[in-house]
Amino acid sequence: MKHVAILGASGAVGREMMKILEERDFPLASLKLLTGSKSAGSRLRFKGEELVAEEASEAAFAGCDIVLGAAQNPVAKRFAPAIREAGAVFVDNSSAFRLDPDVPLVVPEINPEDAAKHKGIISNPNCSTIITLVGVAGIGRLSPIESMIVSTYQAASGAGQGGLEELDAQVRAYAEGKEYPAKAFRYPLAFNLIPEIGSEAFQGYTTEEMKMQNEGRKIMHLPALTVSCTCVRVPVMRSHSISALIRTKEPVSVEAAREAVKNAPGCRLVDDLAQHSYPMPLDTSDQDLVYVGRIRKDLTAENGLALFICGDQIRKGAATNAVQIAELL
Amino acid sequence: MKHVAILGASGAVGREMMKILEERDFPLASLKLLTGSKSAGSRLRFKGEELVAEEASEAAFAGCDIVLGAAQNPVAKRFAPAIREAGAVFVDNSSAFRLDPDVPLVVPEINPEDAAKHKGIISNPNCSTIITLVGVAGIGRLSPIESMIVSTYQAASGAGQGGLEELDAQVRAYAEGKEYPAKAFRYPLAFNLIPEIGSEAFQGYTTEEMKMQNEGRKIMHLPALTVSCTCVRVPVMRSHSISALIRTKEPVSVEAAREAVKNAPGCRLVDDLAQHSYPMPLDTSDQDLVYVGRIRKDLTAENGLALFICGDQIRKGAATNAVQIAELL
Repeated sequence: MKHVAILGASGAVGREMMKILEERDFPLASLKLLTGSKSAGSRLRFKGEELVAEEASEAAFAGCDIVLGAAQNPVAKRFAPAIREAGAVFVDNSSAFRLDPDVPLVVPEINPEDAAKHKGIISNPNCSTIITLVGVAGIGRLSPIESMIVSTYQAASGAGQGGLEELDAQVRAYAEGKEYPAKAFRYPLAFNLIPEIGSEAFQGYTTEEMKMQNEGRKIMHLPALTVSCTCVRVPVMRSHSISALIRTKEPVSVEAAREAVKNAPGCRLVDDLAQHSYPMPLDTSDQDLVYVGRIRKDLTAENGLALFICGDQIRKGAATNAVQIAELL
Repeated sequence: MKHVAILGASGAVGREMMKILEERDFPLASLKLLTGSKSAGSRLRFKGEELVAEEASEAAFAGCDIVLGAAQNPVAKRFAPAIREAGAVFVDNSSAFRLDPDVPLVVPEINPEDAAKHKGIISNPNCSTIITLVGVAGIGRLSPIESMIVSTYQAASGAGQGGLEELDAQVRAYAEGKEYPAKAFRYPLAFNLIPEIGSEAFQGYTTEEMKMQNEGRKIMHLPALTVSCTCVRVPVMRSHSISALIRTKEPVSVEAAREAVKNAPGCRLVDDLAQHSYPMPLDTSDQDLVYVGRIRKDLTAENGLALFICGDQIRKGAATNAVQIAELL
């Protein structure tokens, strides 16, 4: 039985973490909800009871075994030393520590063994990266993945509760013939696409785009992996979709790839074009499996495969993966 | 001065053709609007006058110089012989004749010279193909394009007026807390993505996906071009977007690619990530230029470039391109 705290409990990911701890019947000795000063005092339901959120502070981590981080980088960085000092393990969903060589970056379906090497912090990977890698890891076990060309279709939830609310409000305003200003996103998202997620990072690629390569290398233990990624925000609520073309060391047949996906943990093969069966974000929302379909031979190279992958951004892309890491502990 | 008819005048593309003939002040001796029996008799405005649509029939093409086709394949196939017999040139937006070796397939910015080789029919290419190729053709003039890996984000208008109306109605129903059944599309499009456009064609690729390779080869005179394409319908009204990774024979620098796009006919370079400037479908709607941005080096191969491209599906993707072909005549 573990004493658990959620740091950033009032956001979209924090709330989902509560839901998932409850669903998976995580062995909890206690649950503490920590938020910023604005949300402190708010009541959140958990297993039929009301828990009162406390303002996060250095002192709040005393007695905790595990802290699930659902806050932004500055908050994660600020509290990491206090969490360590309290003797708790920090399972952090921010990107603050992901590439730190002392911090394991874990997708439990792919590299669970890395979790044991932690020194007080384990990072939860980027949401698109988790969903993509869960989708392709089974194929990577047949032959190592050498490169990926990825275009994402990322949901509003990736920008948190504010993103979800903004897309909802924009669509309602449209129905009423009104304007709704963009705040969570730089431009209107309803009926639009925004091909910029994160900030400029490397040779014109954004931070979000580079995560697929940098985090992918670390999670799959493939230091030479190269990824060209284009990240695009789409007017979808909470499932990310990924059009991926992967190149493996040796060619993998479509049949072998389908079989590998079918047997890969955390995946569901949804791949029958004749029956109009393929992954779609509405179908993958509010559940944990990553759906994989449209598996085809790359027509431009011998050793390539094209796939379409969908998964719930808030759950498998964030909250579920973090709770699964906590379960490994 | 030409006697022109529009076959399929009441659909989304047919109506846009009227608008564009008017805007571009096409030298018209007369304009005849032909529709199916259901829309025959309806009145459509053109240059301040009301024109009455006639039911399309074999006899209706007498005296025409140019017939702009905005109808589906069966209608195009049915009337092509009568149009030819009437001595008119059929500029057809359907896919019925596109790969016929006797029929030029023309994007006026790329292969205008092919139009002159017609034997009574000139085909207008697929909408995503037109927009993608206009975006990359300038770079292809620096070094031939050998392959492309393309993921599309295709607007509702690609399914015609019914697609536009369905997305609008679905979003309005959502705002009212109601359901709106999918008809024009197989699944709900609002807040969703549908990774199936067209029917199954080749090794798991759809007809729509194979057009990018097959039409691309013909338009760019690159018989060895290979394209792996994934076509996805997105909840956007009328601009298609394309995430393209192109591989050229020789490496092309990002700077040279930007310069080529800037100088390419029909293109606008919109590429300044630091200023949050990139192509977006809301910005490209209801105008003719193809916007190109997010130009980066492919991180997975020496001779690759990644780009993001947007263009209005109804205009440059269909109606404008057809009227431009008519202007070549």
